[in-house]
Amino acid sequence: MRLRGRKGIRENLEQQQHLVILDPREYKGRWAELFGNDRPIHIELGMGKGQFISGMSVKYPDVNFIGMDMYDELIRRASEKVRGIWQEQGQEKPQSVRLALGNIESIEEFFAPNEVERIYLNFSDPWPKKKHGRRRLTHPRFLEKYRTLLNENGEIHFKTDSRELFQFSLNAFAACGLQMSNISLDLHREGINEEHVMTEYETKFVNQGVNIHRCEVIVGEAALSRYHEHKMEQF
Amino acid sequence: MRLRGRKGIRENLEQQQHLVILDPREYKGRWAELFGNDRPIHIELGMGKGQFISGMSVKYPDVNFIGMDMYDELIRRASEKVRGIWQEQGQEKPQSVRLALGNIESIEEFFAPNEVERIYLNFSDPWPKKKHGRRRLTHPRFLEKYRTLLNENGEIHFKTDSRELFQFSLNAFAACGLQMSNISLDLHREGINEEHVMTEYETKFVNQGVNIHRCEVIVGEAALSRYHEHKMEQF
Ligand SMILES: C[S@@+](CC[C@H](N)C(=O)[O-])C[C@H]1O[C@@H](n2cnc3c(N)ncnc32)[C@H](O)[C@@H]1O
Ligand SMILES: C[S@@+](CC[C@H](N)C(=O)[O-])C[C@H]1O[C@@H](n2cnc3c(N)ncnc32)[C@H](O)[C@@H]1O
Repeated sequence: MRLRGRKGIRENLEQQQHLVILDPREYKGRWAELFGNDRPIHIELGMGKGQFISGMSVKYPDVNFIGMDMYDELIRRASEKVRGIWQEQGQEKPQSVRLALGNIESIEEFFAPNEVERIYLNFSDPWPKKKHGRRRLTHPRFLEKYRTLLNENGEIHFKTDSRELFQFSLNAFAACGLQMSNISLDLHREGINEEHVMTEYETKFVNQGVNIHRCEVIVGEAALSRYHEHKMEQF
Repeated sequence: MRLRGRKGIRENLEQQQHLVILDPREYKGRWAELFGNDRPIHIELGMGKGQFISGMSVKYPDVNFIGMDMYDELIRRASEKVRGIWQEQGQEKPQSVRLALGNIESIEEFFAPNEVERIYLNFSDPWPKKKHGRRRLTHPRFLEKYRTLLNENGEIHFKTDSRELFQFSLNAFAACGLQMSNISLDLHREGINEEHVMTEYETKFVNQGVNIHRCEVIVGEAALSRYHEHKMEQF
């Protein structure tokens, strides 16, 4: 890893305007315009170094992806990863993916109501102390924000190693009256399929034998109808 | 443990009419009459040797308890435990507890709609093979039966060591549109309180360091109102 000063990192990000969004407020309500099409928008909140978002973006070219984090250095690392993986695929410029710098606390300032189809929360910080519970990205105050942003097909896909955070999150989803689906308490034992894209943290934990929890939350009306139509097939 | 033939056990049970109900069908819709009062009825489905139901019955004298199992020998063991614990407390006859022989498959033949206030499912058989999923006591086909029996304050309290059964059950509660509450993935780490009554299986698993999963399901209308009024206090 090259060492750079804070200023150098910011300059680097400024030179990547096709990929990096330094002020996502500018695009609130206009992300479709930025992508130049009406494809669904999937966002990862707290993407870290970008392994997941870059992998997803080449796997699902018909989806527009936005990876979000609050640290310049992580946006830079993720931008390298995205460019690298798109080059490997023989594509010049990443078209259907953007990396946005921002604090999820202000997410309602970045996206307009119904603008997002899916939110990925991968290995969010667990904030183990009870007094920090409000900072957990699955706290009801965040869930209410997400509900507004999500469209009629809206879903939240959540995975974490932390049993404490998972337990907290299940109770939060339940308390907010959200429909849960595909709850898994040991994702990798059940056998993930070809479609599964790993995150950095996931790779690390799975190698250590730590088990991964996962849950989908069905939010949008159309997504709920589809769920209710098929939910008994699992039994 | 004394060894007895099947016939001996049945004779023993027949002599305990004040405590043991050999044909619970007889009391469908008439349990309040049997207990001689209108106190809420809490039942444990698959009580095993009766440690939980006997402990609960002396701890909560204002509740009528029914422990149910399908094996004569377990009813006999549980009856000894109940009589023992009531004697320790200086009470002559167990008044507010009954042990009923029956297969939960036929539970709708034992209880009338709205007759039960709480169902305890403690360490239910996990039936690990997928093809046996229908036998799990939290399968949607059982949940629909329970929903009918439960009254306006109705709740299901479920605990298990089995991660697989717990995962299956959470998905079943979710698919049936049931309101979950107080989900715990490691009950004994969070610290159980004085009120907590252990089951035989729980004692064994906790001693082995196996973690216990627990969840409450809020079914009745009045119970749901109370839940909605207070649910945000946990955050
Ligand atoms: C534990 S890492 C997980 C990274 C990645 N999702 C993975 O699974 O490998 C959590 C990430 O969330 C970011 N993060 C935490 N809180 C945030 C917030 N309020 N706004 C933006 N990013 C945040 C952190 O900077 C960090 O990169
Ligand atoms: C694993 S044991 C748990 C016993 C006790 N609840 C405990 O936690 O220690 C499960 C019990 O459920 C009973 N059981 C299982 N299926 C049943 C059914 N369909 N009807 C009645 N009892 C059943 C078994 O006989 C057994 O005693």
